[in-house]
Amino acid sequence: MTNRATSRPGGRASRVMAAVYASVGQLVGEGATRISFPVIAERAGVNPTTLYRRWNDVNALLEEVAVAALTGDGDVPPDTGSLSEDLTQWATVIAADITRPERTRYLRAMVSARAELVSSCPVMETRRGQVAEMVRRARTRGESAPTVEQILDHVISPLYHRIAFALEVDDDYASRLVCDVLAMAR
Amino acid sequence: MTNRATSRPGGRASRVMAAVYASVGQLVGEGATRISFPVIAERAGVNPTTLYRRWNDVNALLEEVAVAALTGDGDVPPDTGSLSEDLTQWATVIAADITRPERTRYLRAMVSARAELVSSCPVMETRRGQVAEMVRRARTRGESAPTVEQILDHVISPLYHRIAFALEVDDDYASRLVCDVLAMAR
Repeated sequence: MTNRATSRPGGRASRVMAAVYASVGQLVGEGATRISFPVIAERAGVNPTTLYRRWNDVNALLEEVAVAALTGDGDVPPDTGSLSEDLTQWATVIAADITRPERTRYLRAMVSARAELVSSCPVMETRRGQVAEMVRRARTRGESAPTVEQILDHVISPLYHRIAFALEVDDDYASRLVCDVLAMAR
Repeated sequence: MTNRATSRPGGRASRVMAAVYASVGQLVGEGATRISFPVIAERAGVNPTTLYRRWNDVNALLEEVAVAALTGDGDVPPDTGSLSEDLTQWATVIAADITRPERTRYLRAMVSARAELVSSCPVMETRRGQVAEMVRRARTRGESAPTVEQILDHVISPLYHRIAFALEVDDDYASRLVCDVLAMAR
């Protein structure tokens, strides 16, 4: 998990950021309930002012790390030549990914960090881009396809709902959601 | 909220239970982050041993209160003579209900209380009973209807997902989910 977190800060992959991400990952992984800038700074061996300068508050940092951790796998949507197969592969990869205990912990950290209504969710936006690509290819091939919004609402939302509420998620469930959403387009 | 919580402990509506429910409701409502048996007992003016005897741990109590609070409205599913209208009314009542700030807080408390995978979720089971009744009536009238599972996965799950992740929920969203799930049965 630490490697994953440190390898994903995108363009600002400085050593400081890598240490901060890794420390947040460790703290969340340990189930720490009070994660503050001073706690993270101490763990990362950086000056707390670095954190105060870069993020508005600790929730913004937690959310950033959670997004990086939650959208790691399945970043390149499959391209099998069939929307049904693309979506099934994509949904089962996501299901397998978010059921890993450390990812589930991140997801819960993200839920707790959201004290205020957000206008958009970076995790959903990442998924939206992937869905749009699969739907575009399907339509180019002449396949009927549900809308991007329908796939997000009826595949991604139920998966995340089950994870947040600690209900079981498996491949069969992910495949069933895909069958259901495809039935909307028939 | 206090009235609602105290009026819903079901068969064991003793004065002690009412005080305990009301105290949990107040503490969650105040955004208290560390809710323990001693804290609840002090607020409710009861002996902590009463709590230790009745619930395994504080999370079990929090979940019980959350379930009572989250399934309060919409307990009697509508009966309009049309599945589409029944589901739309039912989903918009739930949407309005779970977006009330104190309900959202309960829902988040419930998510945090779920440290371990649960085999079933009392909130979902309550909704399942309501859905089964609406679907049964629709089939008796000769209407085509999605399965109970599809309605839970594609109406309830997306609503709870959005609430947990602090995304906007409104009537239009609830109605759209109902249209989508009905399209699965056509």
